[in-house]
Amino acid sequence: MPTYRLDLSYDGSGFHGYARQPGVPTIQGELEEALGRLAGGKVATAVAGRTDAGVHARGQVVSFEAEEALDPRRVVAALNGMLGPAIVVTSCAQASDGFHARFSACWRAYRYRVLNAPVPDPLDRHVSWYVAEPLDLPAMERAAAGFVGTHDFTSFCRRAPERSSVREVLEAGWEREGDLLIFFIRARSFCHQMVRSLVAFSVEAGRGRVDPGRVGEVLTARDRAAARGVAPPQGLILWEVGYEP
Amino acid sequence: MPTYRLDLSYDGSGFHGYARQPGVPTIQGELEEALGRLAGGKVATAVAGRTDAGVHARGQVVSFEAEEALDPRRVVAALNGMLGPAIVVTSCAQASDGFHARFSACWRAYRYRVLNAPVPDPLDRHVSWYVAEPLDLPAMERAAAGFVGTHDFTSFCRRAPERSSVREVLEAGWEREGDLLIFFIRARSFCHQMVRSLVAFSVEAGRGRVDPGRVGEVLTARDRAAARGVAPPQGLILWEVGYEP
Repeated sequence: MPTYRLDLSYDGSGFHGYARQPGVPTIQGELEEALGRLAGGKVATAVAGRTDAGVHARGQVVSFEAEEALDPRRVVAALNGMLGPAIVVTSCAQASDGFHARFSACWRAYRYRVLNAPVPDPLDRHVSWYVAEPLDLPAMERAAAGFVGTHDFTSFCRRAPERSSVREVLEAGWEREGDLLIFFIRARSFCHQMVRSLVAFSVEAGRGRVDPGRVGEVLTARDRAAARGVAPPQGLILWEVGYEP
Repeated sequence: MPTYRLDLSYDGSGFHGYARQPGVPTIQGELEEALGRLAGGKVATAVAGRTDAGVHARGQVVSFEAEEALDPRRVVAALNGMLGPAIVVTSCAQASDGFHARFSACWRAYRYRVLNAPVPDPLDRHVSWYVAEPLDLPAMERAAAGFVGTHDFTSFCRRAPERSSVREVLEAGWEREGDLLIFFIRARSFCHQMVRSLVAFSVEAGRGRVDPGRVGEVLTARDRAAARGVAPPQGLILWEVGYEP
């Protein structure tokens, strides 16, 4: 059975997250319904990164096996014709046998947008966290530098994964674009709500309420109470997923 | 009675335009209700630019007279506490006697955002017009150059104003920001749907369907049928209003 890769972007605002749940709109639910109508039967998909309610994606990757060969260009047009404007299939390609959106991924990259300005921007409110208090960007960058490397991220995970909370963060940092402060982070994989927990810690460092040099201490505590809560979902975007060429 | 100036920005997506209408949400309706609760009575406002349904504002200006002196900082906090997140009062100041948001304005500036990319962006869909076909930016700039100056804009107005359709366009042009093509235009005042009609004409020029050198001819025709329709509202933002210092 041929395997296909879909790339998609979506506005997570109106959805209860990526993963299918009965009775509520989800990205997976909408996508699998459209794929089922296209392929004339139930289609099971795998996804690179399951996003939470309200979280967006620019470079989400999904894979599935089809009973019969499909024309990738027709797949893109047909799916976009069935899906609403909040979900866009940006490309479809036949993948090598055994390709799996989740297990074949080498890394995931996320961005998180903080709007740090004297007044909020109503046009940006679905894609950023508004923080009025002036933030100290160098302190946030120092916090982010402490996330890089292989650490046990138990303190920054909502619930401990079944196996291990050890993750390797390949890069992490903050950059300014006008009034926007943008967090970028890349790792092989993440624990649940890890990115939003790291953002919350960084912003507390930017507010001067926590010493950014304390990241190591918080990691060592392996206790969620040592962290600084979770940033709201609407600022988070699954940006890109990396695979072996 | 002291006169106050409010500056506001809003997401026009969920509103039936600026102007109050019975039974439907409007910016003016929300704002005057909040002002009435603040001032303890009915407050009549004047506005610099009445925007249509779905059109946004970054620098809208409103003026009103109050029965009693108000503390401008308290006004900002109180109004933002009552208004939903789609409308933000960015500042309030006491104005000179006789200041009128509409009649005292020297010019209005608008921006219009066109997303010109191979695939749409679901996160940008409420604030841009998506055009897939590659657009010829220099042709659009030539069209915009033809709008500048004092002309009778009857061909680019939805309905002819009561007095005259002659308007002086002080500047107009297009610029690129990545996949976004942004139209900017500044004039003392505009006819109804004039900006969106000029955008539609420019985009037709960018598609190669109309010669951008024909602007003069279309203006001279003084006939709406000579233009090229109206661009959709969600790309338009009332950007700034100018007053004498």
